Amino acid sequence: MTTPNWLDEVKWDDKGLVVAIAQDAHSGRVLMVAYMNRESLQLTAETGIAHYWTRSRQKLWKKGEESGHTQAVKSLRLDCDGDVITMQIEQAGGIACHTGRESCFYRVWQDGQWVITDEVLKDPHAIYHQH
Amino acid sequence: MTTPNWLDEVKWDDKGLVVAIAQDAHSGRVLMVAYMNRESLQLTAETGIAHYWTRSRQKLWKKGEESGHTQAVKSLRLDCDGDVITMQIEQAGGIACHTGRESCFYRVWQDGQWVITDEVLKDPHAIYHQH
Repeated sequence: MTTPNWLDEVKWDDKGLVVAIAQDAHSGRVLMVAYMNRESLQLTAETGIAHYWTRSRQKLWKKGEESGHTQAVKSLRLDCDGDVITMQIEQAGGIACHTGRESCFYRVWQDGQWVITDEVLKDPHAIYHQH
Repeated sequence: MTTPNWLDEVKWDDKGLVVAIAQDAHSGRVLMVAYMNRESLQLTAETGIAHYWTRSRQKLWKKGEESGHTQAVKSLRLDCDGDVITMQIEQAGGIACHTGRESCFYRVWQDGQWVITDEVLKDPHAIYHQH
């Protein structure tokens, strides 16, 4: 792939990555946070489908490739420092988290404890073994 | 300070930091992203005022200490991996970005360019030299 100029305005870290935040386009809720490299950001912008770089598996990761829970990107923003991306998305299946919840941020701080506030919408075993 | 157990549930990176996302508590808009260490997260949770760790200056940073643009934290969430925090905040002055804008995410991707969509609400020179 050619490298468009807009990719050069992103301040990649020493591993060639940026933080990417996926928010529900309607509610604004933060659904998940992951990383992107140049290729995944370019694919995300040009296809309108969220792609990340998985640090644990060290590969390009089209979100939903196993679960079916793809993310349609409505808009894409860059911060002042150029090292964080936000995406306003529509989440297929209403589930972004690998635990089967809408959002990865299902724990809230209350009086010195992390309290789980969100229910599991679908058993993760059913999510990852149906495809 | 003593170290409460809830701080041990956070997965600190190799520099002892986590990504911290500040969102407007009402609109859900992401206003800024920075880092926290143990001390800044503990202070944030216990005082209800956002504190970060500045990597460039390598010190504890109470947001707004110079600008007056403090952040009142309404709720604090942790993600499934334990390495990202979201805060739902009320932003003093309605300005989170050092450029004088509401949000650091004032550029949107349009047809292969980052386009500035947000106006400067207050001249940064006026923000940082009045205190």
